[in-house]
Amino acid sequence: DDPLVIAGETFLSRLVMGTGGAPSLIALERALVASGTELTTVAMRRVQAGGEGSVWGLLQRNGIRSLPNTAGCFNAKEAVLTAQLAREACETNWVKLEVVADDVTLLPDPIELVRAAELLVADGFVVLPYTNDDPITARKLADVGCAAVMPLGAPIGSGLGILNPHNIEAIAAHSAVPVILDAGIGTASDAALAMELGCDGVLLATAVTRAADPVRMAHAMRLAVEAGRAASLAGRIPKRRDALASSPLDGRANLDLAL
Amino acid sequence: DDPLVIAGETFLSRLVMGTGGAPSLIALERALVASGTELTTVAMRRVQAGGEGSVWGLLQRNGIRSLPNTAGCFNAKEAVLTAQLAREACETNWVKLEVVADDVTLLPDPIELVRAAELLVADGFVVLPYTNDDPITARKLADVGCAAVMPLGAPIGSGLGILNPHNIEAIAAHSAVPVILDAGIGTASDAALAMELGCDGVLLATAVTRAADPVRMAHAMRLAVEAGRAASLAGRIPKRRDALASSPLDGRANLDLAL
Amino acid sequence: DDPLVIAGETFLSRLVMGTGGAPSLIALERALVASGTELTTVAMRRVQAGGEGSVWGLLQRNGIRSLPNTAGCFNAKEAVLTAQLAREACETNWVKLEVVADDVTLLPDPIELVRAAELLVADGFVVLPYTNDDPITARKLADVGCAAVMPLGAPIGSGLGILNPHNIEAIAAHSAVPVILDAGIGTASDAALAMELGCDGVLLATAVTRAADPVRMAHAMRLAVEAGRAASLAGRIPKRRDALASSPLDGRANLDLAL
Amino acid sequence: DDPLVIAGETFLSRLVMGTGGAPSLIALERALVASGTELTTVAMRRVQAGGEGSVWGLLQRNGIRSLPNTAGCFNAKEAVLTAQLAREACETNWVKLEVVADDVTLLPDPIELVRAAELLVADGFVVLPYTNDDPITARKLADVGCAAVMPLGAPIGSGLGILNPHNIEAIAAHSAVPVILDAGIGTASDAALAMELGCDGVLLATAVTRAADPVRMAHAMRLAVEAGRAASLAGRIPKRRDALASSPLDGRANLDLAL
Repeated sequence: DDPLVIAGETFLSRLVMGTGGAPSLIALERALVASGTELTTVAMRRVQAGGEGSVWGLLQRNGIRSLPNTAGCFNAKEAVLTAQLAREACETNWVKLEVVADDVTLLPDPIELVRAAELLVADGFVVLPYTNDDPITARKLADVGCAAVMPLGAPIGSGLGILNPHNIEAIAAHSAVPVILDAGIGTASDAALAMELGCDGVLLATAVTRAADPVRMAHAMRLAVEAGRAASLAGRIPKRRDALASSPLDGRANLDLAL
Repeated sequence: DDPLVIAGETFLSRLVMGTGGAPSLIALERALVASGTELTTVAMRRVQAGGEGSVWGLLQRNGIRSLPNTAGCFNAKEAVLTAQLAREACETNWVKLEVVADDVTLLPDPIELVRAAELLVADGFVVLPYTNDDPITARKLADVGCAAVMPLGAPIGSGLGILNPHNIEAIAAHSAVPVILDAGIGTASDAALAMELGCDGVLLATAVTRAADPVRMAHAMRLAVEAGRAASLAGRIPKRRDALASSPLDGRANLDLAL
Repeated sequence: DDPLVIAGETFLSRLVMGTGGAPSLIALERALVASGTELTTVAMRRVQAGGEGSVWGLLQRNGIRSLPNTAGCFNAKEAVLTAQLAREACETNWVKLEVVADDVTLLPDPIELVRAAELLVADGFVVLPYTNDDPITARKLADVGCAAVMPLGAPIGSGLGILNPHNIEAIAAHSAVPVILDAGIGTASDAALAMELGCDGVLLATAVTRAADPVRMAHAMRLAVEAGRAASLAGRIPKRRDALASSPLDGRANLDLAL
Repeated sequence: DDPLVIAGETFLSRLVMGTGGAPSLIALERALVASGTELTTVAMRRVQAGGEGSVWGLLQRNGIRSLPNTAGCFNAKEAVLTAQLAREACETNWVKLEVVADDVTLLPDPIELVRAAELLVADGFVVLPYTNDDPITARKLADVGCAAVMPLGAPIGSGLGILNPHNIEAIAAHSAVPVILDAGIGTASDAALAMELGCDGVLLATAVTRAADPVRMAHAMRLAVEAGRAASLAGRIPKRRDALASSPLDGRANLDLAL
């Protein structure tokens, strides 16, 4: 299996984690380690310098690359400013671009999102935008130079899984850049399905951080992403309306193999 | 995590494999090993003594317990006779009980199945019946003494996954014996979902043996079953109709964790 | 369109109504009339002679054929006895055969059900059995002489719709007798779907009697059954993965029709 | 039931028909009449004056209001120009605004769509835009002054129904203007579901014009829209995980109503 490559950087893990919702820094660290993630989003809105007892310390200690996000931004201007502050604070030009339409639905604003992406790409950022599941908007984001596109499966924190597999499959099938499913994942089978639909990775936070046992769920998600990726590469059997005996003859002769 | 226990026997792997559909004995062996299975079904209808170059040799060589099945039996009488022959030939009193209604749908005949189960239990067998997804039939099978119940997700070989998750969840929630999803699995997310619905294990054959790359798919299924089991134990987040910011405050303050 | 024929009797309406759950006799009557039903089930367990102010009076007044049921019976013996009492009380040899496994799931007991059906057919009844959605059990019921089979879409009163359309479609495609979807309907689209899957009719009660506005919902169900039947006969367009312009040329030329 | 009101105009039928895909003008006329539609879209790209033997003649003869569309337009500029030509040719300032991203997916381009809507509203048009199922884009279209929003259920002509009921329900729940489901409908139950999700109307073309029997399917769609609307107003029963006896007591006492 090839590793995931985004903007020339190689990742062996295809699971991107968020940090929101964790009950404590220790719980977060254990979950991140159990997930095997190599890339973790952190909110930049009110970032502060941090020592060892901070998320920064945590990520550096574990060799996890940080991906600042622009959570809480409602238009392109805010998002660009936040990204620029994050670039300085975090010493990375990578940004998870979030431009949401309001603080109730938390859905992306496609128009402001594309505008912000265009501006940030022009400013030298490696832009990973959180977008809705519209294939056209995803294509526009790639066209303006985003390094990946990150469509949602369902509203943030809903745990509803992938509401429209048809769209996610269409995005993955035609994308010129890596596709990372972002938002909506509730459980392991959702993450496996995302990969089977052709996604290159999965981003999730609350499905792990708010599970009853975050470490175990982080482990489950790690396995699920690997399982879905392997299944995607293995070439699944076609779906059939009717039954098919597992033996070529008549379902009775499996052991003829033994003869 | 507790191991799977069926009739007093302990299994670390919760993936039961079938042998049907494999292109060759070597391909089968590689896939079985990659799956990590400890229990594998083999058709007994026309079983013959086998040497090293047989399925028997394969299973013994790899320390995999064999589970003879009664594939191709259309009524209780045939199934009982087949099971008895298998017991002698395979030196095991375990049997995967299959009594199908016809060779087109390959669906279980619930009446003949319960009858056969009752007779085999009385005859000292450890009976693992392949059944439809009706919760009442599953309960009857446990009531007559079966060691596990194995409801289908979809018709054999269809790869349609789990057509009625509501029924599978109901069976698993109330079963007095282990529940192993049998038939219908097409890809990794199906196997993970089965475990998340509360099943104790998954049985599959063609999803692996007829995949383009059986070894890789076997590995995917192994991971998926582990992922689904872990997710089931980890206590997933509830499904919500609406979005929920990943940060308790307002979605902007994740990094306050760092303060 | 051909009418529905069951045991030689012709019905112009394909909607069978139950009477359970109605808030009052007057509300029930209005809903039954709005539904256009010609066949209505009534519980026989504790039937009493009734005058004009009874369900009997109601049905006779509106020319609706009564279909006594065996609700509350848990085995074949009880069901047969109940049916025989009903035959005398209601002066009809038609019976909706219900044999449920317990009073929590209210799911049919397939073994007792087939046994009861066999006995009642031998005793001269016109038997319409309420069954699960297993195609094999449905076939057995037709084979022992039932006049129709009535598989469930979902548990009684759940309003979950049709949990396994694949099974309902398989039953309808191969049944030698009319198939009437019974139980699970929650709203109009569920009823339309049942007909589109090939059912010959729909039976429902609480979806109407417990709706906020039973009369309006009865009207909705009447239209939905007609809509689904018409759609089924009209030959729907095939499902396509991708878009297809509505104009044969390129989506721009619809008005060329006008030239 | 209230009638549908768009931009001050009242419609008794909530089914909007398209004209694409019809095998002949006569077949189209019969289907339109059977559908009961009062509003019908026609492509304006290459409109020509028409006499009695034209779509125009057809619509006028049957008292059906025409709704010119901008099919085949790929950006705001083209769409505005097409709409202006249509306004002159058809003597109506109503327009079904279509701005698709390409001629393969036929999916709306959300950015160009909102831009075109804004321009057309400013130019005095009554704009009914065909959009994707993103709630934010739908809201923007209402905000810029569209008279209705018309989200897709699935790609045009796919017959896949409503791929993301969650989004359609969210759009309908919060829209300040009427919501008409446009594209994706394959059969009657899809149309009923659209209405149950809260839509104010349904627009479809090929589901009728390319059905094996267009007139019968038009009739089915008419009934389905009415059924779904009535069901929506009637207040459906809640979905329940478990069974609920139809009688308040124990499932046996329905006839106590008769006492």
